Amino acid sequence: MSSSNRTVVRGGLVVTAADELHADVLIEDGRVAALAAHGSEAAAGWTAGNVIDATGRYVLPGGVDVHTHMELPFGGTFASDTFETGTRAAAWGGTTTIVDFAVQTQGHALREGLDQWHAKADAKCAIDYAFHMIVSDVNDATLKEMDLLVEEGITSFKLFMAYPGVFYSDDGQILRAMQRGADNGALTMIHAENGIAIDVLVQQALDAGRTDPRHHGEVRKVLLEAEATHRAIQLARVAGAPLYVVHVSAAEAVAELAAARDKNLPVFGETCPQYLFLSTDNLAEPDFEGAKYVCSTPLRPREHQAALWRGLRTDDLQVVSTDHCPFCFNGQKELGRGDFSKIPNGMPGVEHRMDLLHQAVLDGHISRRRWIDIACATPARMFGLYPKKGTIAPGSDADIVLYDPTAEQTLSVETHHMNVDYSAYEGKHVTGRVETVLSRGHTVIDRREYTGHAGHGQYTPRGTCQFLA
Amino acid sequence: MSSSNRTVVRGGLVVTAADELHADVLIEDGRVAALAAHGSEAAAGWTAGNVIDATGRYVLPGGVDVHTHMELPFGGTFASDTFETGTRAAAWGGTTTIVDFAVQTQGHALREGLDQWHAKADAKCAIDYAFHMIVSDVNDATLKEMDLLVEEGITSFKLFMAYPGVFYSDDGQILRAMQRGADNGALTMIHAENGIAIDVLVQQALDAGRTDPRHHGEVRKVLLEAEATHRAIQLARVAGAPLYVVHVSAAEAVAELAAARDKNLPVFGETCPQYLFLSTDNLAEPDFEGAKYVCSTPLRPREHQAALWRGLRTDDLQVVSTDHCPFCFNGQKELGRGDFSKIPNGMPGVEHRMDLLHQAVLDGHISRRRWIDIACATPARMFGLYPKKGTIAPGSDADIVLYDPTAEQTLSVETHHMNVDYSAYEGKHVTGRVETVLSRGHTVIDRREYTGHAGHGQYTPRGTCQFLA
Amino acid sequence: MSSSNRTVVRGGLVVTAADELHADVLIEDGRVAALAAHGSEAAAGWTAGNVIDATGRYVLPGGVDVHTHMELPFGGTFASDTFETGTRAAAWGGTTTIVDFAVQTQGHALREGLDQWHAKADAKCAIDYAFHMIVSDVNDATLKEMDLLVEEGITSFKLFMAYPGVFYSDDGQILRAMQRGADNGALTMIHAENGIAIDVLVQQALDAGRTDPRHHGEVRKVLLEAEATHRAIQLARVAGAPLYVVHVSAAEAVAELAAARDKNLPVFGETCPQYLFLSTDNLAEPDFEGAKYVCSTPLRPREHQAALWRGLRTDDLQVVSTDHCPFCFNGQKELGRGDFSKIPNGMPGVEHRMDLLHQAVLDGHISRRRWIDIACATPARMFGLYPKKGTIAPGSDADIVLYDPTAEQTLSVETHHMNVDYSAYEGKHVTGRVETVLSRGHTVIDRREYTGHAGHGQYTPRGTCQFLA
Amino acid sequence: MSSSNRTVVRGGLVVTAADELHADVLIEDGRVAALAAHGSEAAAGWTAGNVIDATGRYVLPGGVDVHTHMELPFGGTFASDTFETGTRAAAWGGTTTIVDFAVQTQGHALREGLDQWHAKADAKCAIDYAFHMIVSDVNDATLKEMDLLVEEGITSFKLFMAYPGVFYSDDGQILRAMQRGADNGALTMIHAENGIAIDVLVQQALDAGRTDPRHHGEVRKVLLEAEATHRAIQLARVAGAPLYVVHVSAAEAVAELAAARDKNLPVFGETCPQYLFLSTDNLAEPDFEGAKYVCSTPLRPREHQAALWRGLRTDDLQVVSTDHCPFCFNGQKELGRGDFSKIPNGMPGVEHRMDLLHQAVLDGHISRRRWIDIACATPARMFGLYPKKGTIAPGSDADIVLYDPTAEQTLSVETHHMNVDYSAYEGKHVTGRVETVLSRGHTVIDRREYTGHAGHGQYTPRGTCQFLA
Repeated sequence: MSSSNRTVVRGGLVVTAADELHADVLIEDGRVAALAAHGSEAAAGWTAGNVIDATGRYVLPGGVDVHTHMELPFGGTFASDTFETGTRAAAWGGTTTIVDFAVQTQGHALREGLDQWHAKADAKCAIDYAFHMIVSDVNDATLKEMDLLVEEGITSFKLFMAYPGVFYSDDGQILRAMQRGADNGALTMIHAENGIAIDVLVQQALDAGRTDPRHHGEVRKVLLEAEATHRAIQLARVAGAPLYVVHVSAAEAVAELAAARDKNLPVFGETCPQYLFLSTDNLAEPDFEGAKYVCSTPLRPREHQAALWRGLRTDDLQVVSTDHCPFCFNGQKELGRGDFSKIPNGMPGVEHRMDLLHQAVLDGHISRRRWIDIACATPARMFGLYPKKGTIAPGSDADIVLYDPTAEQTLSVETHHMNVDYSAYEGKHVTGRVETVLSRGHTVIDRREYTGHAGHGQYTPRGTCQFLA
Repeated sequence: MSSSNRTVVRGGLVVTAADELHADVLIEDGRVAALAAHGSEAAAGWTAGNVIDATGRYVLPGGVDVHTHMELPFGGTFASDTFETGTRAAAWGGTTTIVDFAVQTQGHALREGLDQWHAKADAKCAIDYAFHMIVSDVNDATLKEMDLLVEEGITSFKLFMAYPGVFYSDDGQILRAMQRGADNGALTMIHAENGIAIDVLVQQALDAGRTDPRHHGEVRKVLLEAEATHRAIQLARVAGAPLYVVHVSAAEAVAELAAARDKNLPVFGETCPQYLFLSTDNLAEPDFEGAKYVCSTPLRPREHQAALWRGLRTDDLQVVSTDHCPFCFNGQKELGRGDFSKIPNGMPGVEHRMDLLHQAVLDGHISRRRWIDIACATPARMFGLYPKKGTIAPGSDADIVLYDPTAEQTLSVETHHMNVDYSAYEGKHVTGRVETVLSRGHTVIDRREYTGHAGHGQYTPRGTCQFLA
Repeated sequence: MSSSNRTVVRGGLVVTAADELHADVLIEDGRVAALAAHGSEAAAGWTAGNVIDATGRYVLPGGVDVHTHMELPFGGTFASDTFETGTRAAAWGGTTTIVDFAVQTQGHALREGLDQWHAKADAKCAIDYAFHMIVSDVNDATLKEMDLLVEEGITSFKLFMAYPGVFYSDDGQILRAMQRGADNGALTMIHAENGIAIDVLVQQALDAGRTDPRHHGEVRKVLLEAEATHRAIQLARVAGAPLYVVHVSAAEAVAELAAARDKNLPVFGETCPQYLFLSTDNLAEPDFEGAKYVCSTPLRPREHQAALWRGLRTDDLQVVSTDHCPFCFNGQKELGRGDFSKIPNGMPGVEHRMDLLHQAVLDGHISRRRWIDIACATPARMFGLYPKKGTIAPGSDADIVLYDPTAEQTLSVETHHMNVDYSAYEGKHVTGRVETVLSRGHTVIDRREYTGHAGHGQYTPRGTCQFLA
Repeated sequence: MSSSNRTVVRGGLVVTAADELHADVLIEDGRVAALAAHGSEAAAGWTAGNVIDATGRYVLPGGVDVHTHMELPFGGTFASDTFETGTRAAAWGGTTTIVDFAVQTQGHALREGLDQWHAKADAKCAIDYAFHMIVSDVNDATLKEMDLLVEEGITSFKLFMAYPGVFYSDDGQILRAMQRGADNGALTMIHAENGIAIDVLVQQALDAGRTDPRHHGEVRKVLLEAEATHRAIQLARVAGAPLYVVHVSAAEAVAELAAARDKNLPVFGETCPQYLFLSTDNLAEPDFEGAKYVCSTPLRPREHQAALWRGLRTDDLQVVSTDHCPFCFNGQKELGRGDFSKIPNGMPGVEHRMDLLHQAVLDGHISRRRWIDIACATPARMFGLYPKKGTIAPGSDADIVLYDPTAEQTLSVETHHMNVDYSAYEGKHVTGRVETVLSRGHTVIDRREYTGHAGHGQYTPRGTCQFLA
């Protein structure tokens, strides 16, 4: 190999989930070939066509966002980011892999849904991508399809305890899907809210004229998230299966996960920046502005944030994803004026995860290594992508972010790259910014300039969860 | 009043939930008029037409069994005890009040079911009786009916988290019923098993040829009782309502109740003698004999018994009822040969509760006062009958048992008075026996002879739960 | 007996821990002979020389205050109430029995201390009294003495984990005393604070010039009460002995008791009105006024009160006593000006317990029956006095309070009867007041007039704890 | 640098706490210079004077054993391994760093004890070493010395809640030492047993003629380890200091740690192979053979092992050290014939830790990465040695073990290299064996031949605990 096919990243601080190393990184053919200590003879001997100076920068593995919903149909409309716009925004934010959710429509095969999602994403993505599968219809046929999908790299299946009539599965269906996962290695992902009870409260609220967005938060009660979390854990125990609870937002739900993990059960939890940085105060913003913050599980009173941060520190929560599912305020969120239950559920966020979590490092919530752990390494391990993704180590994909830890920026719809007409973090100042991003060795962001292209990103089949013995 | 209308019970040890008193009891007009210390001038002055010598005997309040199913239709057949035979057997066993379950049939009014049960019981009972109502169909109409029923003395409503398609209510229905209870004072009783998940396991067992009675116990898993118990508690918290969990059988379910009660939530639990004295060893008896012990919740492995006794001592369980629901082995239990799911669920027991719990006193599980507490006083308070029922105090109904604590007996189908062709405790030796029973001052058992008659027992409307502030 | 030796209390509501009865009470020879329902023929037949009209009044068992320190030497001075003044004040407040603490001086025999206390109390008391024994010096000789004392009715022994050099026993001594209790039936009472650690913090506070009374509360940390409580429980488990923790003040200590009781361990806890109604706000009162509230365990921040009330409701705390140990502000509390560690520890309270707890009934913290339970019945059972004391039942001592539940009063040093120059509740309005008090049938308070006399009260030997199987 | 100063380890599987990498390792000047993927151009280009073929081998960081007692004086004798013999045995077992305990003698300065330990170790060690300091005498002078020692790399101090009269510190002393650690960054290590209570039980056992070694296990009760663990945690909370509990052996103590860690307290726990693989069955071996297993905390009943393994998996325990403290059976352990309290406390083990834990990997208790985590990386981080020690990364010391995961061996006094006349694991078969060991690039074990020398090992000052923010 001539040196012109090689890239060296020199002089940075390589931060992974495990280590902070003063090391140069050598890339060959899109993969990390070697790391060598700054100033070592080994490092000095490297020649490369592309030498990137990382002095004063962090050299990070690209972010792995395992919860996105590009172009998701929901409530009669579609999430406003396509795979093209959404993955480009992800790249801007230092994320180099997403795992999106393909959706089975009730009455149709899993395969059919998966094919649709492949069609949406194919040749559109700026960064690599993979799929989970939402199962809306657990039956003998779909259970058999699950086995096949696992073999081709769809190794996680999401079921909903909420949204009766749409995505909802009953406890028997969830149990059966979990049992299948216990056999075929799949990880069951659960949206844990007692949707049957919540829908009663929704109707009661609407009947009583409580129609504003803030009532979305009030009816989707903390106790009903905690209850569903507990139930999912018990069903997983009965099935002998692992469990991954998505978008945990309530302190009481974290407590359920903690209790399960103290028993050494294979139970995992994810939260999202919106639960860490926003609250019911936002849902209560006047003039229907609260609709911007409508997502499920809902934002919680501010005091839950401390429990979430603590959970991230104690490893009772392991992953921070975005649940990126943007709907424009104009024309989309507005569908729910006068009836909060008609507001499309979801928020934009794929671009800001790495930055917000870096801010959390500065704020003292988590350590620098834990930042990379919850945003890169652990999501990759959780969904069978490690060490290809999620770290910088000999043999890994060269998905690398040069991060300027001292740059200042203000988050805003004016400057973000997501295809949505508002920012949930409008005006928020953060310190730290993505400077340069490599995806499999190719530079997609070069000193705050987009140099990537739709179609660079490849579909990436996954192995099974790497936290199971 | 002439002395001929009075009864004095002399020389016994009056044992109530609160006290053990060396006192004589004076009955006037079917009610307790006074207690006086043995040998006091006051006691000496009493004259009565009927003087009962209680020397060497305990003088107990009559038992209150708050969970019976006389003539219950289940699985295409009927529980084999009528109100006539069942209440007579209860009297033999020292129980002077039952609270039976009237059943709403799906699609019919509560009132209709209640009328049927009144018709079954009217003029048949040997002892006093009252009703709970099983709600099979929570909807706007039945919720309104609940208010009316509370006013006429039906103050508790049972809902099932098990038996989909029969008695099952979903979480939304349960929530609505609980909300109504929070308003009208009714106590919600819950059969706490995740029946949706269990039915999946039942089908899997049958498909795999696991058809014997013991598989009834294996598929109705401990974790699924604990889960449903937890869920019921959370729903009650959301509703701001009290909760009474029937027939708790699993240690893990007791733990859920204990956790709730440590928070001072108005959550209560009942267990039954079969869970305290029998186990899955019985379910595994050969030659289909296990069918005799098929009930739901099911019998558990023997090690759960210690947790139940502990729960009774720590007051995390408050009531022991029988869930009396007998089906003859021949012709009824046999319906499930080759398919355990077709075995009628239920066991006989109304006659033996007081004796088995006295044996528990002798075995050191509970104190003498706690025996009366869990079998008489607390059930009466729980369901709004105290101090009319459940104690011996001035003003109480003269429902009084003279109990010989040293008599020996052997439980057997040969000697019991229930209308069922087997005993679940065949051959068990116990110490202690009911000798004489008064119901509102009338002697219905007189030194082991039945002197009562069908129709003596009166329907007894109830107040609301007395454990709520 | 002629009717002139009999008393009848007519027309009141008899409230005991177990029941609320519309009953008349007949007293013969200083004991309760009988209860009869209002209007019953039995009641109507009673004649008596003394008929007390209790219409509109509660008829209560006299209060049992199991934690008083009359004339206690502490910090170079003596508690300001003698047995004469203190028991008279108790009677005014509806308390008819106290259990005071005889003190062993280090290096002297238990007997010597007990004799001193007998001498102090003999012929002085307005109401009946008994003794616990403080053991300051656990050794082979005192362990043997404990057996003898149990036999003569001193059945509980208090040890201190605080006050090194004065009352302190180390863990080995505590273990040995508990082991002895496991053998001879004695109940070990523990002052649970880690005094060794606290004394380090005291010295650090004084060295830093933090000398005001409020620092008394700050150095005696919640965690160090909880720690000692946990340690006492573990030592009791090792010894196989029961444990009674005195003056529990911290939520975290209640949690330790609750955890132990969930395991069905024979562990009991007492709190006092000062912890339920006062807080560190009082300790922080300016001009050294905080000294009035210096006691140990100390008053806690207000938010602990909810945990104490909850503990009383959940039965994780069983007893409310006063820890009555008054020191005058002038001349006594003032010893600690400039050095909070020299303020005599203790507060007056024996007179107000029944009233403050009745106020708690009105405030919704506890039920009426629970009031009598924690103030009368359970203390009596705990220390082997029931049913002689603590209830109104045939055979009980006629220690009876007529209580006016609607009278209004204001607590104040101007009107109280304790021998101390301030009230800890100065200006507090409460509803409810003691009207008349009988001690063994003799009227000691007659419609708010003191009719008793020093020496009426008798020493009352006790049996062992009645909560042990 | 010429290639003759370089070493390359080729073809192995590099296993660290974070990763399993197919990578070659380049060593320059005793440190790891670079890692490169097998077959990469970068790796292919490396030349070195010393090429080690690691095909089929694990390439591991050298073990870090943070709990050894070479030449410890105890009970009138000395631990039988010197720094020379002990560190050589460590090297044989794949351990390349020990942290031993220097001991302050009561009444003497810390410095004096430290100087003695330096003198013992200087020029004797086969591998690198560092020191903790045992503080026997907390007072103003020693507290000041602690600050100085932290600055020179003694960053952890051990205090004993056991051994009154020898190492024991009371709670006030422990609190003061912890407070100092909160200021100067030191980590407080605690031997958590309630020695005051235990000594009472010891004396009672001896008085009763229970003198055999197995009574050592019986008197040092599980509850008294758990109690002391709880107490240490509370004292650390009061001090605002981190805590490291040594040699955790009881399930109940693990539970205390887990509860603290759920609260995100900086509380850490260590266990040892003897608690994971041996039990009270060994202590009960006849003919005084049980004495071989006398150590404190003592071996526990076998069922505690599962809790320890679970704790290691859930990260409620973080470190496995050996507490290596050998005494010969003949002449040393025999001092306790007829009086178990005179048996020197301690067991040999420094040589077998890596192998026993590899066996645990094969047995399914822990993963391969967790093996390295608990034995290398986390101990190094805990005591301020990472990434110099504990991992293989650019810049780390080249302390590297080639491990043959398929070799079979039998542990025995015949073949071990520790200076002690018995093996605690005599006859135990394990799979896996250390083959070659590098210490800072020098080969000290070369394919099962010792090539090191006394004095190669260097004293290594340490930074402070790396788990604190």
